[in-house]
Amino acid sequence: MTRLRRSPERIRLPRGFSFSALAAGIKASGRPDLALVEASVGAAAAALFTSNRVVAAPLEVDRASLLASGGRVRAVVVNSGNANCATGPKGRKACERICREAAKLLGVRAEEVFPSSTGIIGVPLPAQKIIKKLPELIAGKMPSQRGALAFARAIMTTDSRPKLASARFRAGSKQVTLLGIAKGSGMIHPKLATMLVYLFTDVSASPRELQQLLQDACDPTLNSMSVDGDTSTNDTVLLLASGQSGARIRDRRVRKKFAHALLAVCQSLAEQIVSDGEGVEHVIRLFVEQARSREEGLQVARAIAHSALVKTAWAGADPNWGRILAAVGSSGVPIDPTGVKIFIGNQMVCRHGTACSFDQERAHRALAQPVCDIRLQLRRGASAVRFLTTDLTAEYVRINADYST
Amino acid sequence: MTRLRRSPERIRLPRGFSFSALAAGIKASGRPDLALVEASVGAAAAALFTSNRVVAAPLEVDRASLLASGGRVRAVVVNSGNANCATGPKGRKACERICREAAKLLGVRAEEVFPSSTGIIGVPLPAQKIIKKLPELIAGKMPSQRGALAFARAIMTTDSRPKLASARFRAGSKQVTLLGIAKGSGMIHPKLATMLVYLFTDVSASPRELQQLLQDACDPTLNSMSVDGDTSTNDTVLLLASGQSGARIRDRRVRKKFAHALLAVCQSLAEQIVSDGEGVEHVIRLFVEQARSREEGLQVARAIAHSALVKTAWAGADPNWGRILAAVGSSGVPIDPTGVKIFIGNQMVCRHGTACSFDQERAHRALAQPVCDIRLQLRRGASAVRFLTTDLTAEYVRINADYST
Repeated sequence: MTRLRRSPERIRLPRGFSFSALAAGIKASGRPDLALVEASVGAAAAALFTSNRVVAAPLEVDRASLLASGGRVRAVVVNSGNANCATGPKGRKACERICREAAKLLGVRAEEVFPSSTGIIGVPLPAQKIIKKLPELIAGKMPSQRGALAFARAIMTTDSRPKLASARFRAGSKQVTLLGIAKGSGMIHPKLATMLVYLFTDVSASPRELQQLLQDACDPTLNSMSVDGDTSTNDTVLLLASGQSGARIRDRRVRKKFAHALLAVCQSLAEQIVSDGEGVEHVIRLFVEQARSREEGLQVARAIAHSALVKTAWAGADPNWGRILAAVGSSGVPIDPTGVKIFIGNQMVCRHGTACSFDQERAHRALAQPVCDIRLQLRRGASAVRFLTTDLTAEYVRINADYST
Repeated sequence: MTRLRRSPERIRLPRGFSFSALAAGIKASGRPDLALVEASVGAAAAALFTSNRVVAAPLEVDRASLLASGGRVRAVVVNSGNANCATGPKGRKACERICREAAKLLGVRAEEVFPSSTGIIGVPLPAQKIIKKLPELIAGKMPSQRGALAFARAIMTTDSRPKLASARFRAGSKQVTLLGIAKGSGMIHPKLATMLVYLFTDVSASPRELQQLLQDACDPTLNSMSVDGDTSTNDTVLLLASGQSGARIRDRRVRKKFAHALLAVCQSLAEQIVSDGEGVEHVIRLFVEQARSREEGLQVARAIAHSALVKTAWAGADPNWGRILAAVGSSGVPIDPTGVKIFIGNQMVCRHGTACSFDQERAHRALAQPVCDIRLQLRRGASAVRFLTTDLTAEYVRINADYST
């Protein structure tokens, strides 16, 4: 694979889910900013949330509701344009009110409504605007590709394109489908989960089974990427299973195929998020090998992916391996520099922690591609991690320096 | 103080030191790149080095030499344009050869020569160019302000101006002088010491006494700043004491006055380095208060100073306190967001972890100044730290994205 999947592939719909979206006037632009998913017969749910100590109000509500409902979800209500974070007790109350109103209209319990918000931090959520639009939102729900795409567009903030991925497999006479929808472009440095990611499937599984599958699929994908090193306060990954396919996760073959499909969908969404990162011109796939543990490999990958000097060199397609080595040296992992090898593209550029002769022009050309592989070998153990990251461009600064408040 | 000291003040020279500089052809630009300090009767020395695991060759030589000489230095030889880092055993041998040649010409022992290098990482040091110029370098030494300024200019890399600070005090009939010279503009995120900083004094002290004084003065100054979050492989702070003033550090009054002067000089150099940071338009003085310990306060300050989103908001003078709060939340310190207060300039902008009413335009104007104070209160303890940092501008990206290798 030398290209990352940038545009949605064919969207396959799992049974049991309807989608809807509209503009409620939260975004100043007037673009769609309110979205709904209804699981008509309900769904078993598993979720991962941000590790940031500052947690948005909807995440507090989500945690409490999943506990109260025993991991059952009937609807997801998402607004973009406002993160409902650092909004105090009023923010939590606004979120709970929206859930109650949606539950009433849908004829379900409030704790079966899963709320999400994304956008600016610290501004009160205009709950009334959302509540006023709920009847229209619910009336518009469709179990169709058009509905899913409308949902994907309405949850966007600085994203330049909607992000969807799907997979389908057969299990005997049953057909299982998995659909993932994500948003995210800046503040991407997840430590537990990333931004807003929704995964829908018609497999039959308990919340507990789903939770383990979700964790396993996210660790090497949505948890192994960084655009700007900033961990969001609203990161959420939600996996909903309607059971409508009739295929049960307890069947070992179903479980294996489902785990594979889940990993592929999460990987595609991770690639779509990173390649649509704010101002990104080059995506870098870091492979940190010969680490003592997976944690250690991630620590090194994050140090590289968090170095302003390394990321700006990538923006210039500069094969400056010295900056990469310096970032590894300050990662906190007690590496021996003389054991380190670095490869750019398919060329070794550093061995024994020092330069080896290599074709500079070829390394420059490899880095000038939209996607480039950089491989490190630490000579400390047998663990390897794959980590997706990006360059840091003047465009990123322009996007984020706009006087927006 | 509302302005930072950007240009050298009047330079005061301690007795016992001569300076020299010239162009040896290491920098492609032909600018001065080789510099010498001679302590004519020798000096007691204390030094701090980088905490990066990747350590440049001259730092390895420095550590070994200080041990061998018992903390005595007769000369400092610095080249810019090449860091002599990640250059393997050849890099160390090149450095040792330069020290031996300099020692022979000066009539001292090789371990009394303290070498430093700064510039690009991973390129072999052209030792022969340096050795050829040593006789001319030594012949040109002057115990004068002109010499000190020439030294300060020759150690510059991406710095736009030389950085010097000095202090003088009386101790009875004796007069003690302290002169500091620094370079540094990018890769500024010291954890033990920062870039190249040389401090010269004529006080009389042992290496051990100097080491404690140096550590105490650097912790709140040169160790409490960050431009880009990247820790250099060549960070060095060296303090040399010739004893020529006759004032002894064992005298408690001398010690107190000297510690005060050392702190002031280190603070001035830290401010000069940060305000000359690559692409910097705004310097931010962070005050993190009510932390449980100094370490915890620093951890929070570094997380803020390392956030691309916070730093780009500062570039746009955007009083986006939500990004600051999110950076605090992901700092690793178990803060309670509802206990956090944030002030921009002299206005509170966040209380109980949420917005309080404030004048946005006034906060914007405060951030638009060359220097702005941002104060955080964590409600966790009684420790406070002061930390100097900067915005992240498109110009920083341009400087570092140039395809330089």
